[in-house]
Amino acid sequence: MTSPQLQQLSKDIEAARQNPPCDPSLMTLMLRNGPDDLARLNKMRDIIEKEPLFDKSQIPFLSRQEYLAYSIKVHVRLLEILDEQNLSLDEFAQLYLATDIVTPLQLNYGAFIPVIVSQGTDEQQAKWLAAAARHAIIGCYAQTELSHGSNVARLQTTATFDEKTDEFVINSPDLTAAKWWIGGLGVVSTHAVLQAQLIIKGKNYGPHIFIVPIRSPIDHTPVKGVTVGDIGPKAYGGFATTDNGFALFDHVRIPRDNMLMRFAQVSADGTYTPPVHSKLSYGSMVKLRVGIVTDAGWKLARATTIATRYCTVRRQFNLNDPKQLESQVISYSSVQHRLLPLIASAYALIIAGQNLSDIFEVMTEQLAKQDASLLPEIHVTSCAFKVWGARRGSEGLEESRKAMGGHGFSIFSGVADLFATFVPANTYEGDNFVLVQQVGRALLKQVSFLASGKPLTLKSASYLESLKQGTDATYALKETITNDALLEMYGIRAARLVAELAKEAQSGRAWEDLNMECWNVSFAHAEYHLLKEMLLKVKAIEQSPEYAPLAPTLAKLAHLFGLSTLCKEGLATFLCTSTISPADSQRLQAAYRAAIADLAPGAVPLTDAFGFTDRELNSALGRADGRAYEALWEAVQKNPVNQEQGRKEFAALIQQILHRGDNLAFIKSAKL
Amino acid sequence: MTSPQLQQLSKDIEAARQNPPCDPSLMTLMLRNGPDDLARLNKMRDIIEKEPLFDKSQIPFLSRQEYLAYSIKVHVRLLEILDEQNLSLDEFAQLYLATDIVTPLQLNYGAFIPVIVSQGTDEQQAKWLAAAARHAIIGCYAQTELSHGSNVARLQTTATFDEKTDEFVINSPDLTAAKWWIGGLGVVSTHAVLQAQLIIKGKNYGPHIFIVPIRSPIDHTPVKGVTVGDIGPKAYGGFATTDNGFALFDHVRIPRDNMLMRFAQVSADGTYTPPVHSKLSYGSMVKLRVGIVTDAGWKLARATTIATRYCTVRRQFNLNDPKQLESQVISYSSVQHRLLPLIASAYALIIAGQNLSDIFEVMTEQLAKQDASLLPEIHVTSCAFKVWGARRGSEGLEESRKAMGGHGFSIFSGVADLFATFVPANTYEGDNFVLVQQVGRALLKQVSFLASGKPLTLKSASYLESLKQGTDATYALKETITNDALLEMYGIRAARLVAELAKEAQSGRAWEDLNMECWNVSFAHAEYHLLKEMLLKVKAIEQSPEYAPLAPTLAKLAHLFGLSTLCKEGLATFLCTSTISPADSQRLQAAYRAAIADLAPGAVPLTDAFGFTDRELNSALGRADGRAYEALWEAVQKNPVNQEQGRKEFAALIQQILHRGDNLAFIKSAKL
Repeated sequence: MTSPQLQQLSKDIEAARQNPPCDPSLMTLMLRNGPDDLARLNKMRDIIEKEPLFDKSQIPFLSRQEYLAYSIKVHVRLLEILDEQNLSLDEFAQLYLATDIVTPLQLNYGAFIPVIVSQGTDEQQAKWLAAAARHAIIGCYAQTELSHGSNVARLQTTATFDEKTDEFVINSPDLTAAKWWIGGLGVVSTHAVLQAQLIIKGKNYGPHIFIVPIRSPIDHTPVKGVTVGDIGPKAYGGFATTDNGFALFDHVRIPRDNMLMRFAQVSADGTYTPPVHSKLSYGSMVKLRVGIVTDAGWKLARATTIATRYCTVRRQFNLNDPKQLESQVISYSSVQHRLLPLIASAYALIIAGQNLSDIFEVMTEQLAKQDASLLPEIHVTSCAFKVWGARRGSEGLEESRKAMGGHGFSIFSGVADLFATFVPANTYEGDNFVLVQQVGRALLKQVSFLASGKPLTLKSASYLESLKQGTDATYALKETITNDALLEMYGIRAARLVAELAKEAQSGRAWEDLNMECWNVSFAHAEYHLLKEMLLKVKAIEQSPEYAPLAPTLAKLAHLFGLSTLCKEGLATFLCTSTISPADSQRLQAAYRAAIADLAPGAVPLTDAFGFTDRELNSALGRADGRAYEALWEAVQKNPVNQEQGRKEFAALIQQILHRGDNLAFIKSAKL
Repeated sequence: MTSPQLQQLSKDIEAARQNPPCDPSLMTLMLRNGPDDLARLNKMRDIIEKEPLFDKSQIPFLSRQEYLAYSIKVHVRLLEILDEQNLSLDEFAQLYLATDIVTPLQLNYGAFIPVIVSQGTDEQQAKWLAAAARHAIIGCYAQTELSHGSNVARLQTTATFDEKTDEFVINSPDLTAAKWWIGGLGVVSTHAVLQAQLIIKGKNYGPHIFIVPIRSPIDHTPVKGVTVGDIGPKAYGGFATTDNGFALFDHVRIPRDNMLMRFAQVSADGTYTPPVHSKLSYGSMVKLRVGIVTDAGWKLARATTIATRYCTVRRQFNLNDPKQLESQVISYSSVQHRLLPLIASAYALIIAGQNLSDIFEVMTEQLAKQDASLLPEIHVTSCAFKVWGARRGSEGLEESRKAMGGHGFSIFSGVADLFATFVPANTYEGDNFVLVQQVGRALLKQVSFLASGKPLTLKSASYLESLKQGTDATYALKETITNDALLEMYGIRAARLVAELAKEAQSGRAWEDLNMECWNVSFAHAEYHLLKEMLLKVKAIEQSPEYAPLAPTLAKLAHLFGLSTLCKEGLATFLCTSTISPADSQRLQAAYRAAIADLAPGAVPLTDAFGFTDRELNSALGRADGRAYEALWEAVQKNPVNQEQGRKEFAALIQQILHRGDNLAFIKSAKL
């Protein structure tokens, strides 16, 4: 299988690596948090790649039930490795991440344990975390109900205190109160940390958190009074190995001590002590949103790596001479205009996510000292980034897939599951349309401070200061469009959109009628800060001894991010706010095309720099060596339908059609 | 299960039907082509609903292989019904459609047979169609190869004429020449109509079509020299029951008579007679694109029916009084701004698709009389509509799903497969980015006629005449924004975008660099004509005795379509072309909000009017009776993971984790 046609693919991908705009491996180091982190990751990758069980090539052919069972076997093997190699819990967490296979225990680590850590008393932590650490129990976090998601205050599950027995009675008053969507509940969990309305002596104190047994850790049968199960497959095959579950509770009794009492307490006589503040639980919500921003960046990085490589080796048409070697698909302007801005967005999201994580760490330390000053700031920006990352990220994953043409629709493109498992981020951890209202409301407050001459309380809203120069004049574009000029334009647009929102709100329109205006405000805020973070990063690495050589490339990526977002999705609001004129837009479009042309030849190294392994990409089309067609061929040969057994089973079925009535005689006589 | 909470859902959906903007069942009649067509459809629905095999509730739990096998069993049963009820072939086709289950024989009917009908000689038709009609053979249409999709001229499979034996030798010179993506080839087909380079005496005459045996109709084993199989699952689980396949040919010999010779012929001595014209084969391409437009409309109709019903019965938050009954989600402006424009788009696409089908019929009749005058016209508009319908349709399906919040991500929302099976329409039957260039090129020609004072040859480009009034002045908006005014604005925008494209092309930019400009031109052309078709339909039904009462509602839907497309996706190009000013955009936004407010209370009847049955919608969330939560509950109970057998299997796996080391002793002593 080494025909000239097939060899051409390897040649093309290698040629694309000949003149990189920067050293891709140095960029990898920067994006992956330096040599120590990367070395640790590579150590885990080595362990994973040696295990035959972790080979993913059969996964596309499994039913969801088989895939779910497979993922649990993977987890069993991971725990064996934990023992065999005597890993620390931190190392185990990294190993788990490095498998790149989601298992139903993900939310045991990601939600059940963290909630106990943040909300449990020291005694509660001692008891439950010890059991969780040895996996003698597996847990989930049960908040959402069949009829309540966003409106947590109206959850219907009750936890009624019974003084006589010193117990809480957990009850679902109605089918609509069933816990629903709870990851880990469907198949695996023995316990849940559960949100329920706390009721003492007939009085409702609102939602509190309780540890509720679900299934026996001994024989794994459901606890008496609990009706529990898996809610079934999800859209697009997403989260197939997450056992989102349901549960109904029929007067299930738990000891009083199963209420997590770090912040609020109920004493034996039914006295309720409210929490001093509820900021810490809020912090964990912020953390989940920051995670979505980072996830958006890395998933987009994967998809663009795959699409860039495939479009580099795929050739189709030759516009100059139809008889000659066809042109690489990546040389077409339509493909460049789709992929390059997405590569820039991936960089922007990764950088913004890292920075947001860093600020989050600072905030967490401050919160521990009762200092909540960073909270409003990080709330607004994390909401805006989450909405932007979820929306533009999921669109970008689909666009990357489509840019690969027909083969992009094969499961072996490796992009489908990225979208399928990322797109619900638009809805969870705060529905996008709910979050943009929070962003809008916060910025509205800032603009009212400005109007009344008070200082702004959010540094991130400082672009509002530009309103002092009025809202009519278009930005004076210079001959050369610098990154600083772009940032200024983004600031002006964001400020004017906030000002318009304020005007509309004052005009008497109801707040809930202003959702689309909040949407625009939130996107403008996010885009201003995404660009700003990139430019700050450029400045930072210019000063850094290791990474300084990367600065010019990162500056070009920032330039492309700024121009493409302005010229595509953002164009309408830049024009509507008169930040730019229609004539300016022509000039900006030309600059955008120049930025694309500048970076397009380096697309392969720029995505190599994300540093994924072939196993992680799990894509026939996106192989590092470019051998897409051979990989597709190999992948489909594993289809059970193509094996002897599968063929025979189908032949028997199809013969029921072919041999209907006297067809068999007909076929033989007609010699078909 | 008749708690007040659950009863509320039924009350809400019924209340939403109390004051319909028009009679939904009259609208159904109009959309479904009148009482005769609807009666035929209902007859088939009755047959389908009586068959237990056609119940779809187990489908979400099947592996792809099981689902594929199931779909063949469905087909076997359909053929039994054909015999039992003595149906005509037309009736059978309707029955097949009404099952709403795609089977691997779809392209046997949709491509294999039609290609023989259009390209086979009378003798060839007599032989092969008779066999196909009794299902003694099953076929597919094999064009695309592993390394060639869009560029058909460069297909690599060869059909070399061997004078000595009077045969063609079918051969794949290389792995990259493997036929790939061929629907029906993977598992079921016995024959293919296959595109291959015709080679006679060393000379290549380009791609021609041959009937090639693939598998024996007797024992269904592959024919000697043919390596054939299924290419595996597709992205998002789409087209699971279509057996897209691959095939490699190793010098497979077929009789000379297996070349389809209606248009081109090869005689026994190797003399080649070229076709007189190739228009008819082009006609079938147009037909497939028209089909995509109609499909986009009806799929969007399904998704919006589901989302509208669910958002009507889902309640969340009460902004006025948090203690009272919560607000219906459909009452939120963000939900209305997402769903109502999509409902209007569904109407627009259905109407445009119907009209395009009608014109296509006229064209087909004319082509039979060697009159190809309609072809250029229908080519441009069908390309532009196909691109628009595929893009906006697939986006709209996803948006409908997201508008349902968390539960939208459940497979039981019934929307996931709509997107999964529609989104590849962006790529097939002409990749969108290839087609927009054809639209751009055709319109460029028209504008050059205009510039040189010649008459336009495309009626559909008559909006270009507005260029004679210059390209600078914004449209003079009147106090009331009428539908005719909207259409005029759409015409001005489209004309100016074509003019800009011409300017850029003249400025020396390479044609392939103008792809994004062509994209905008194609969308503007499509939107102008979608609106125009709707307005023509309004005028037509105003004069019709049966449907006149529907005219005001259809006019409102057209108004909403025009305003929403202008204010959302189209806003940037309306501003860039100075068709409107930023100040106008404010006024248009207000009109857009008024149009939403006008239609939103009628959303349920407007989607009821599409006339789907619950079985067709196959959605727990979109039930006609509003009982979404009960339906979700019932659907998940069927999950095999929740049955005794499934539970035990998983319990055994999870115990391998829970009972690691000495955990069992620990669990017992700790009483967890």
